[in-house]
Amino acid sequence: MIIGIPKETRPGETRVAFNPETAQKWVDKGLEVRIEKSAGLASFFTDEAYKEAGCVITDNAIEGADIILKVNRPTPDEIKRMKSGAVFAGFLWPAQNRDTVEALLKSGITSLGMESVPRISRAQKMDALSSMGSIAGYKAVLIGADALAKYMPMMMTAAGTIAPAKVLVLGAGVAGLQAIATAKRLGAVVEAFDVRASVKEQVESLGATFVDVPLAEEDQQAETAGGYAKELSEASKKLQEEAIQERVKQSDLVITTALIPGKKAPVLVRASAVEGMKPGAVIVDLAAEQGGNCELTKADEVTEVHNVRIFGPTNITAALPLHASQLYARNLNNLLELIIKEGKLTLDFEDEIVKGSTVTHAGEVVSPFVRAQLGLNADA
Amino acid sequence: MIIGIPKETRPGETRVAFNPETAQKWVDKGLEVRIEKSAGLASFFTDEAYKEAGCVITDNAIEGADIILKVNRPTPDEIKRMKSGAVFAGFLWPAQNRDTVEALLKSGITSLGMESVPRISRAQKMDALSSMGSIAGYKAVLIGADALAKYMPMMMTAAGTIAPAKVLVLGAGVAGLQAIATAKRLGAVVEAFDVRASVKEQVESLGATFVDVPLAEEDQQAETAGGYAKELSEASKKLQEEAIQERVKQSDLVITTALIPGKKAPVLVRASAVEGMKPGAVIVDLAAEQGGNCELTKADEVTEVHNVRIFGPTNITAALPLHASQLYARNLNNLLELIIKEGKLTLDFEDEIVKGSTVTHAGEVVSPFVRAQLGLNADA
Repeated sequence: MIIGIPKETRPGETRVAFNPETAQKWVDKGLEVRIEKSAGLASFFTDEAYKEAGCVITDNAIEGADIILKVNRPTPDEIKRMKSGAVFAGFLWPAQNRDTVEALLKSGITSLGMESVPRISRAQKMDALSSMGSIAGYKAVLIGADALAKYMPMMMTAAGTIAPAKVLVLGAGVAGLQAIATAKRLGAVVEAFDVRASVKEQVESLGATFVDVPLAEEDQQAETAGGYAKELSEASKKLQEEAIQERVKQSDLVITTALIPGKKAPVLVRASAVEGMKPGAVIVDLAAEQGGNCELTKADEVTEVHNVRIFGPTNITAALPLHASQLYARNLNNLLELIIKEGKLTLDFEDEIVKGSTVTHAGEVVSPFVRAQLGLNADA
Repeated sequence: MIIGIPKETRPGETRVAFNPETAQKWVDKGLEVRIEKSAGLASFFTDEAYKEAGCVITDNAIEGADIILKVNRPTPDEIKRMKSGAVFAGFLWPAQNRDTVEALLKSGITSLGMESVPRISRAQKMDALSSMGSIAGYKAVLIGADALAKYMPMMMTAAGTIAPAKVLVLGAGVAGLQAIATAKRLGAVVEAFDVRASVKEQVESLGATFVDVPLAEEDQQAETAGGYAKELSEASKKLQEEAIQERVKQSDLVITTALIPGKKAPVLVRASAVEGMKPGAVIVDLAAEQGGNCELTKADEVTEVHNVRIFGPTNITAALPLHASQLYARNLNNLLELIIKEGKLTLDFEDEIVKGSTVTHAGEVVSPFVRAQLGLNADA
């Protein structure tokens, strides 16, 4: 069997699906691993390092490959170049990329979506959303701290004491929790808010204050079975907005991470709240690609309004390429180990992880979660 | 008495000599404080805030002022506009700026150099070199961490453990010590080196490892009376260079802070050491303005060589303007309190701090330290 790793084509992408360490695992198992020339360079993995790991450096890692590994979804051209029956694994985001799903179905490609791996304990080591989310939260704080006109930590100097910066984190999923942890590391005073009251304990265990907001009765359970936040009623949104406005105005740095799967990100920070912020304050909006949690965010831009700067990075994990690629490669490797047994492809749809992750196979959408997202009937 | 605060003219400068809080202290004492329009804006202090503090907003904070406060040295034009007998306080760096000293002498200006404040306990609260040095060390780590392709902290994830970044700090003065503290906060493994064995304990108290380098016998006391590092013999330089080269090659992030007062910065990191660094490694050279501690540093540029990026910021404190201005203002305020008593200028040259800080007065260079630097005979 041949594994092919093309170079990513998304503008600004620095990651690569496999690092030399992970590639070598499959070379050692007797598979051929082909990697496109300079595919790892932006992650600081040289062609020489892949060669030493036993990989074949090539101009074409797609034609002839049995398994194609990427970070981002395949382009139409890449899908055309794959052989029928080939396996593709990478981020697919099927609900947002129906054309890609169509093309994969038509070409008879078996595709696994890294975003679709079920969030169960056994699948944690394949959970690329978590490993990338953690990087996003970490980098958001570094970007914010670097942009701030103030120290993050309290400083006791001969010329008096400097108060620590106040950081507010909106949304306490993986990215939010890592943002809290990183801001705490840097010595800031941190508050966090999430519609899911269940994360309060996690927030507090990191040393941050949980902002309690009364929710309307119909939203007392604001968490879906998969552990994601669900959309709130209008009454709750209003209560939430008022409470958040007040906290935003007190903050030096606001990191927003609130996402609702398959939907536009909720607007948590209104223009009027930004106007009330201190001169020099900074917002880093990790929901920029999904429309932003701040009303004024512009994707991939730094917006300056009323002396407040708003960062809207859309591919922030690409800014930590070496570790992002290393962790992604490990996640991918762990998923591959489920479907390649003794050098042979074995797709066991009785396995909840395999079934849940498989977006397309033999012309059908397999994953029940993806079928629901695409509005298809329950079973293929 | 009138205090005047002009807007800084150095390109890229964001600081201002007084913030509203400090200005108000002098307004409350009955002095008039004039501040140039928008002088504080880049530090996020608005004209309104100064007005509320009782300041006069003006287009001309120099003519007519008895005391002129700046961050950077006065320009020839500014000196011309000062009245004879006026007092100027700000960074002067007399050895590097003999023209400025000449002009101040000729114009009969009394000038106090913030870099010339003696380093004695009583003067700690006026020590702007320390407060700015601390900011430089802090920002250097933020710049480095943000540029790194890796996490700084160790990360224990479901997909395996990520080792912490290795940070090497060269020079353990105020900037170096704050760089160590900040890198430790972020979870890195930190090593530090300084020619002064006396700082070993401070380095270790911050949780970093002190790199022991054998010095040639003639350099066993590599510290001047003022607490600064002195220049080493050729024999010691060679031993030091070899030891440092090895540590540099193992490091993900190198922060260099080694300065020798009035001299070109020592070259500690050779091009060959950079070549041996890991792809993706980062150097932040805080000695860039004095020629750099790394052979490849270019002032105010980011140099990329062998997949290593070298940052050479020359006015890094300007990147934390609000707190830099606040601390500088407090340092300056504490110095002013020594020379303005009950609303009157009282220059008491019996006071070691006043004498040591006064660069020019009545056509003479006063500070003994500055006289030595300029090669003048011991006393005025």
